[in-house]
Amino acid sequence: MTDTRATVSPVSLAAVDAPDQPTVTPELEDLYRGFEKELLVPLWTEIGDLMPPHPRSKAQPHRWEWSTLLELAGRAGDLVPVGRGGERRAIALANPSLGGKPYASPTLWAAIQYLMPGEDAPEHRHTQNAFRFVVEGEGVWTVVGQDPVPMSRGDFLPQAGWNWHAHHNAADQPMAWIDGLDIPFQYGIEGQFFEFGRDVISDAERITPERSRSQRLWGHPGIAPVSQLGSTQGSPLLCYRWEHTDRALSDQLDLEAEGYAATIERGHAAIRFTNPTNGLDVLPTIRTEFHRVASGVETAPTRETGSSVYQVFDGAGTVTVGDFTWSVTRGDLFVVPSWQPLSIRSEASASDSDSGALDLFRFSDAPIFEKLNLARTETEGTNR
Amino acid sequence: MTDTRATVSPVSLAAVDAPDQPTVTPELEDLYRGFEKELLVPLWTEIGDLMPPHPRSKAQPHRWEWSTLLELAGRAGDLVPVGRGGERRAIALANPSLGGKPYASPTLWAAIQYLMPGEDAPEHRHTQNAFRFVVEGEGVWTVVGQDPVPMSRGDFLPQAGWNWHAHHNAADQPMAWIDGLDIPFQYGIEGQFFEFGRDVISDAERITPERSRSQRLWGHPGIAPVSQLGSTQGSPLLCYRWEHTDRALSDQLDLEAEGYAATIERGHAAIRFTNPTNGLDVLPTIRTEFHRVASGVETAPTRETGSSVYQVFDGAGTVTVGDFTWSVTRGDLFVVPSWQPLSIRSEASASDSDSGALDLFRFSDAPIFEKLNLARTETEGTNR
Amino acid sequence: MTDTRATVSPVSLAAVDAPDQPTVTPELEDLYRGFEKELLVPLWTEIGDLMPPHPRSKAQPHRWEWSTLLELAGRAGDLVPVGRGGERRAIALANPSLGGKPYASPTLWAAIQYLMPGEDAPEHRHTQNAFRFVVEGEGVWTVVGQDPVPMSRGDFLPQAGWNWHAHHNAADQPMAWIDGLDIPFQYGIEGQFFEFGRDVISDAERITPERSRSQRLWGHPGIAPVSQLGSTQGSPLLCYRWEHTDRALSDQLDLEAEGYAATIERGHAAIRFTNPTNGLDVLPTIRTEFHRVASGVETAPTRETGSSVYQVFDGAGTVTVGDFTWSVTRGDLFVVPSWQPLSIRSEASASDSDSGALDLFRFSDAPIFEKLNLARTETEGTNR
Amino acid sequence: MTDTRATVSPVSLAAVDAPDQPTVTPELEDLYRGFEKELLVPLWTEIGDLMPPHPRSKAQPHRWEWSTLLELAGRAGDLVPVGRGGERRAIALANPSLGGKPYASPTLWAAIQYLMPGEDAPEHRHTQNAFRFVVEGEGVWTVVGQDPVPMSRGDFLPQAGWNWHAHHNAADQPMAWIDGLDIPFQYGIEGQFFEFGRDVISDAERITPERSRSQRLWGHPGIAPVSQLGSTQGSPLLCYRWEHTDRALSDQLDLEAEGYAATIERGHAAIRFTNPTNGLDVLPTIRTEFHRVASGVETAPTRETGSSVYQVFDGAGTVTVGDFTWSVTRGDLFVVPSWQPLSIRSEASASDSDSGALDLFRFSDAPIFEKLNLARTETEGTNR
Repeated sequence: MTDTRATVSPVSLAAVDAPDQPTVTPELEDLYRGFEKELLVPLWTEIGDLMPPHPRSKAQPHRWEWSTLLELAGRAGDLVPVGRGGERRAIALANPSLGGKPYASPTLWAAIQYLMPGEDAPEHRHTQNAFRFVVEGEGVWTVVGQDPVPMSRGDFLPQAGWNWHAHHNAADQPMAWIDGLDIPFQYGIEGQFFEFGRDVISDAERITPERSRSQRLWGHPGIAPVSQLGSTQGSPLLCYRWEHTDRALSDQLDLEAEGYAATIERGHAAIRFTNPTNGLDVLPTIRTEFHRVASGVETAPTRETGSSVYQVFDGAGTVTVGDFTWSVTRGDLFVVPSWQPLSIRSEASASDSDSGALDLFRFSDAPIFEKLNLARTETEGTNR
Repeated sequence: MTDTRATVSPVSLAAVDAPDQPTVTPELEDLYRGFEKELLVPLWTEIGDLMPPHPRSKAQPHRWEWSTLLELAGRAGDLVPVGRGGERRAIALANPSLGGKPYASPTLWAAIQYLMPGEDAPEHRHTQNAFRFVVEGEGVWTVVGQDPVPMSRGDFLPQAGWNWHAHHNAADQPMAWIDGLDIPFQYGIEGQFFEFGRDVISDAERITPERSRSQRLWGHPGIAPVSQLGSTQGSPLLCYRWEHTDRALSDQLDLEAEGYAATIERGHAAIRFTNPTNGLDVLPTIRTEFHRVASGVETAPTRETGSSVYQVFDGAGTVTVGDFTWSVTRGDLFVVPSWQPLSIRSEASASDSDSGALDLFRFSDAPIFEKLNLARTETEGTNR
Repeated sequence: MTDTRATVSPVSLAAVDAPDQPTVTPELEDLYRGFEKELLVPLWTEIGDLMPPHPRSKAQPHRWEWSTLLELAGRAGDLVPVGRGGERRAIALANPSLGGKPYASPTLWAAIQYLMPGEDAPEHRHTQNAFRFVVEGEGVWTVVGQDPVPMSRGDFLPQAGWNWHAHHNAADQPMAWIDGLDIPFQYGIEGQFFEFGRDVISDAERITPERSRSQRLWGHPGIAPVSQLGSTQGSPLLCYRWEHTDRALSDQLDLEAEGYAATIERGHAAIRFTNPTNGLDVLPTIRTEFHRVASGVETAPTRETGSSVYQVFDGAGTVTVGDFTWSVTRGDLFVVPSWQPLSIRSEASASDSDSGALDLFRFSDAPIFEKLNLARTETEGTNR
Repeated sequence: MTDTRATVSPVSLAAVDAPDQPTVTPELEDLYRGFEKELLVPLWTEIGDLMPPHPRSKAQPHRWEWSTLLELAGRAGDLVPVGRGGERRAIALANPSLGGKPYASPTLWAAIQYLMPGEDAPEHRHTQNAFRFVVEGEGVWTVVGQDPVPMSRGDFLPQAGWNWHAHHNAADQPMAWIDGLDIPFQYGIEGQFFEFGRDVISDAERITPERSRSQRLWGHPGIAPVSQLGSTQGSPLLCYRWEHTDRALSDQLDLEAEGYAATIERGHAAIRFTNPTNGLDVLPTIRTEFHRVASGVETAPTRETGSSVYQVFDGAGTVTVGDFTWSVTRGDLFVVPSWQPLSIRSEASASDSDSGALDLFRFSDAPIFEKLNLARTETEGTNR
């Protein structure tokens, strides 16, 4: 696996954007000192950075290798207890150009969480919207509002803000998964609340059902329980099982092969996880999708306002984000900053027994942009 | 099966509601003649009927027995061809107090449709919203927009207005099912359009897939194809399979037994068929639901603005609508007029091998009332 | 004023639409008798009428002359008291082809209401949505929820269902105005409720303010009272004053003259009365607009699903609806049935002192069609 | 005017919130070095700051005096030209605890803009949503989409993102006003675009009409132009005139005096500027309101998620935000950070000729919080 960081020259934004400034005379110097004293800043010295022609992300494209993450998380499992105060054994991706903060992008948090056999993570709730996605393993149940929700490879568990939740590992193996939240966004706009719940969940919640109650109420396609009707901002369905995601993606590629509109471009199937009460995103601020790129296919470079984090679920390939290109394989995570073009190439299958498709889970801050009228997308043609 | 039409006295609305009228003098008679000549009608002579204290349906509660319907439909299969012009071998329920019109209620059309082995019903489209529900049989595919959709016992197929559709019977048996439409409503407000399509569908549409393309795109719980996103007034999912409906109902009764909120009242599970693009009703004017009343349970009398038609899918029981009480069994249909109280009693199971639940499919005009701010519901307490 | 009812031949729908029927054999006759006995009706004998290629209204275009209405209403003022039971001295337009029912169209009620000096109309409420429009006169206040709302020439007063309301005439002259309601629509779908209120309003409600409280809270352009926020199905603004309507129409014609997009076609200004809480129609089922057709202008024939009633507010002209053409002048009312083309011609001004524009108030059932996905409009080009 | 910055001790968040940390062993140190090397950050060391129990704003309450701003802006008028590149002679409020950035709060930009007689500010457009509010003066027109919009004392001019706009001063006096934008918010989430327009506007746009075309189309209460219908994310009404705002506020206090619900608390009238196409906020990200606090009234301390900036329009009084209390008078601006309680006291009127009310214009980021399900408000009772 190679990291070809080709020709990334630090762009001198100041040189490009700073407008001509008025000649600095003693009077102007005096005026600027007056501004400073009175806590004022003129627009004409700042406009180039503040109001650029298009988004220039402070974040940098970056890839994290799953094997390294998992090894470090395993060591944390041995050395760091889970309990009240620290709350979770979660280790966050820190974008290389965001000052060491635990931010994958300016709006998104992505972390690997690790729970040892028999361990519990204590109950709490927060306004931050969250989800879990499982790239491998099983045996942990997330208890949301006292409803134990199973987690297995490929499962996606959204959990809207202000729901009580805890985790318990009922297996005899450690288990890792990724957490995604809007922590940086809510930190930035200063809207977040947090409360501790019970330190220990009850025995009744320590059960390990194959389906959560949320799935039994809401997990039937196009079917809503009349007793629970009404649109909710977060999805009441707390687990989207891999078997359904997988089949939906296969169906799209099959339909494409039969000559019907189903994929978003040739060889590129994509599904969105939706809230069954309104057909919208599962979380108020976070969009979640699953993409399958057929063997040998390369997607058209596309840029969007807002940032995304991807995790490779299966297969191998090459990903290009702006000036960065990486090889990726199962579990690897990478971040796509705002308005950086992304292209994904699936490695052609070597064997007959393997579909060779590249499967990727994706989450982004797109709902924020769409609700506030700031969403833009641009797909490049052949000019790369 | 008995039809106990207990104590239905024709209410003299005029006696009750007509306000005191001004004494008829020669001058007033002359005025009334002036009104008539100029195509005018005074409110004070009409208000009692036009603006009653609550809805008094022109329709009457009525039950149709499935065995009779099926027998007559079978004879029509032998005597009446299906083809362009007549369009469908459909036989509609005519409410006994709506003047012989083919209206189950003032807004709803309900018919048994019958197709012989090898027969086609020709393609057409209309603004009337429609659905099919299958109480028994299999072998017919409804071709909607050239997508063949399978029909088997328990399946529900919504089909919003202005979609091209045809049927073909690929089996060696006749097949019957029910059609529901908003024909009377659209006839009343005068908004309907109709167009003939092709007389013969192509061989490519004569296939008999287990799942339609619509199901392959939209039939995965909480999962939307990114290439097809956007809220639509009618559901893009064209078949809701019985296995999912059945499981959702069972899950509700199981959850109730475990002590959780899931049913709409004790022993009464209910699901609504919803449009996955927005979580709302599958059709702009028609609501569709499935109800399961556990063995020995009697539902609380409830009245609503708007009318409903029910078909018994399984089990047996007793239904009371206003002053009417009927025994019902598999396939029987009954209509509940606006603001008439309905109660359903499931027959206690005689055997151990049978759940004894009474399963009912229901459709109603509730979306019209909800969108126009006219929906009201009233559930009686214990006072029957 | 002439009524040129040119070439209206009764169209034989049966001849045009009835499909070929199966040959009537004894077996078929027997089957049809079976249908009848079991309260069933086959589709194939009814489809031509029930599902026509486009709406064919049961209603007929018709014009009522204001002078005649007013004269008859005045006689009713002398002969018929207003009071509890009859509720209102309202005289409704009865479409000539709707069987003598007080329906202007299959969905709309339009009536002239008349109140003598010092008279009260008692308080009541109903789910029927209503409005008043004043073509001439002043001196009556409609008391809605105990808030007296003034009525003068050109004022429009919407009043959503289920609000208590009464009228009192504080002037020394009789006053007439028109009432519009959705009585036929609610009667047809059977959703209506009605309640009597107080027989006599209090002295505090007998005041005659220049602006109602609703106008003081909501009558400022683009400005909402923070204490009353939240979208409501009916407008909280209870009076739309003529001075604003008039100015908005003048502004559109002026903007057009200056070269800007403002009118709906050349010389044809149109405003819609909207609910300030959501920008939608003022009533859940009724759309209300004001049109101004500049002197000498003829509007393009346009047809829509749904019906409208117009009242001439000022000016004179010629109106063509389907096969009917009438001269119209101040106060005249006419009805446009579903899918009938309408064209309006303003009489060229004879004098310099008069703008010569034809001003028309319009109400229709368009919100019903739009909310239920049944709205269609077609504007003819030059081919009349 | 005094600035009593009472007892603001820098809160040691670390001491309060940092959870107990695991004992640092050599293995743990090694793990932490591994995290650092791999661009990872553990949650358990950061959670106290990242996920606090409630918002703790990085911003500080602060007041800027208008007299000082105006004096500095006047000097800038003499020293700094307006032109392409610098774009505007705007001087922004820089919150004292946001590192010298031109941010009034983490999401909001507020600036005084100053234009000399005969000057133009060149045309541009940007996705940032903006408005102008005029505390004194007149003579400038903001040309939005080639439509010149007048600006006078008390007028409010919203301007949604991506509209071309320029300014021209047609008077013989300089003019100042405030600009509000969502620059910091869009900078943080990285969604902004910017484009230069024409350097010089045409003579046709240099006119000085009393009403803009937008006002002629949309400035009539509850009345929409049929040719322009459809909900828009930004208001099509580009100027909300002071006469309407003033009258709406007076009406509320009068209604309160007459005993009716109209104000948000006793003696505290408030209106919101709304988009007439949907009744919502005039801008997708910014809420704008006007408040009038009657003479001698003190408002109940209230805290909200999200931040606000206020400008005193008239009157004088005392404002308390968290631990800060200031005297304020005409033109003064102050910022209320997220979740800081605000109370406003109007100075009792000294003279008979003056109403003594304190009038304040307010803008905030509330739409962001409401659309993303993060809005919370808390009004304290008597316990201050």
